[in-house]
Amino acid sequence: MELVTGGAGFIGSHLVDSLVSKGLKVRVLDNFSSGRQEFLEHHDGTNNVEIVIADLLDLDAVKSAMKGIETVHHLAANPDIRLGTEITNTDLQQGTIATYNVLEAMRHNNVKRISFASSSAIYGEASVMPTPETYGPVLPISLYGASKLASEALISSWCGTFGGEAWINRFANIVGPRGTHGVIFDFIHKLKKDPNRLEVLGNGLQEKSYMSAEDCVRAMVHLIDNAEEKVSLYNLGTGDTCSVRRIAEIVVEESGLDNVSIEYTGGDRGWAGDVPKTSLDVEYLFSTNFKPKMQSEDAIRYTVKELIKEIGL
Amino acid sequence: MELVTGGAGFIGSHLVDSLVSKGLKVRVLDNFSSGRQEFLEHHDGTNNVEIVIADLLDLDAVKSAMKGIETVHHLAANPDIRLGTEITNTDLQQGTIATYNVLEAMRHNNVKRISFASSSAIYGEASVMPTPETYGPVLPISLYGASKLASEALISSWCGTFGGEAWINRFANIVGPRGTHGVIFDFIHKLKKDPNRLEVLGNGLQEKSYMSAEDCVRAMVHLIDNAEEKVSLYNLGTGDTCSVRRIAEIVVEESGLDNVSIEYTGGDRGWAGDVPKTSLDVEYLFSTNFKPKMQSEDAIRYTVKELIKEIGL
Repeated sequence: MELVTGGAGFIGSHLVDSLVSKGLKVRVLDNFSSGRQEFLEHHDGTNNVEIVIADLLDLDAVKSAMKGIETVHHLAANPDIRLGTEITNTDLQQGTIATYNVLEAMRHNNVKRISFASSSAIYGEASVMPTPETYGPVLPISLYGASKLASEALISSWCGTFGGEAWINRFANIVGPRGTHGVIFDFIHKLKKDPNRLEVLGNGLQEKSYMSAEDCVRAMVHLIDNAEEKVSLYNLGTGDTCSVRRIAEIVVEESGLDNVSIEYTGGDRGWAGDVPKTSLDVEYLFSTNFKPKMQSEDAIRYTVKELIKEIGL
Repeated sequence: MELVTGGAGFIGSHLVDSLVSKGLKVRVLDNFSSGRQEFLEHHDGTNNVEIVIADLLDLDAVKSAMKGIETVHHLAANPDIRLGTEITNTDLQQGTIATYNVLEAMRHNNVKRISFASSSAIYGEASVMPTPETYGPVLPISLYGASKLASEALISSWCGTFGGEAWINRFANIVGPRGTHGVIFDFIHKLKKDPNRLEVLGNGLQEKSYMSAEDCVRAMVHLIDNAEEKVSLYNLGTGDTCSVRRIAEIVVEESGLDNVSIEYTGGDRGWAGDVPKTSLDVEYLFSTNFKPKMQSEDAIRYTVKELIKEIGL
């Protein structure tokens, strides 16, 4: 049995699909703060997916959900990076302390394998781009990035102290159907409110690596099967980037709306803690014979189409 | 006014001495879990040092201790790395969450400068030695190391999100008078109990970088004056190493005892999470025109002499 924390969420539910398609049984642990029942409803009645509704801050609940688990796929986290600028303890609790509880529950149940969703946000404003896994020192500038780096450190120290195997995956910006946050999601909701005006935070020149959720979970599963260090650590991305300005244009194109004025609030970043440019070096991932099916712009256009269907315009 | 968390502790009390000798007023915040009143008693009646007894987990107390502070020197932590193998939440609480509270109290009081005692433990079993600050990925193997890396990440993200300046210092093993833990302290206590036998955890070939507490706090103060990045990050050490076997020999030599049998428990490390070999690259520190007064072995012999006086044999 596999455990997916955050398994009812955006990336988590895609991972559940991927594990089930490999013939595995999956237990989902989710507090449904951003996860949604409907992301998993296609598994209803199949006996492949078991759903436990609990918060990772409830250590007893996590311990009991850990029984009989082979591998933990730890994806639960606060998905809204911007939130850290207003409420400072969300990432500490839903990120760092939640990860501590997952590891403590694993230790109590002798579960030895964990695959973790880390983030390119840990690199902060890296001076080397594309940024490889060997880049240091890593100095995150968002509280979200700090909680991901803290979680990596906890996982690594658990393996070093109590034994176990870990796969740490530093995600690019992941996009796709079922997205519940992020720039594409925001743009479509803005156009839904006002079909004549699209406000873009910052000057639009922010540029980041994107990857489709489907490629992302494929890479996660691929690495568990193909990477065999005690702690395997990989950047997950496509190797290219896309600007926020280009995303805005694609959203407008796909919206079918004719008179949208794209307006920029200015400044080099969307909010305090936003990294203006990220570019992940993914040669290490590619060296394991993994290739993504979509590059950044394809993943974005596909996501825009799917989210317009989901959200409606 | 300067704030020193853990200011009644081993390294903290040396830093208080150093700041006072520069003419600064110091507030000490300590819960006296390992700190001692006597380490500061030479400042009694001088009006230079104010002592606040509080735990960093008490956010209100930390906020109130933060009033009127120019620079925070954050040294408080669980000093016993081995403890993490038995009690897993000590480093999370006394390390990571304590640092969060310090930063949150700074934000509330608009305090913008923090100097932090990190550790070479963050590097885990690094594949590059001597290990430079640019080494990555950093994968700590002790829960103590994980809490130090988590604290670095919090500090960096705070500066990136809310503004401020930070000095992150990755300490070698720091030794000196007033030591309250660590290998030299342990060896002397063992000889006090049994003057004929000294048990050494592991095979004695563990080899680490050492630095005297006096050089360490001199380097901390020096970097605040000389390093000017938004987040300055430096290894603090001497550039050489010393083996545990050599430390045992020095302790026996300085003890004056004649019939001590040194016995090794065997294995390449003292306990789970112990890093068998650490060697810090300190060229970056030296490039700021800092030079330590003592190399590793000199610092160890001096410490042995002083701790034998303090502990008695």
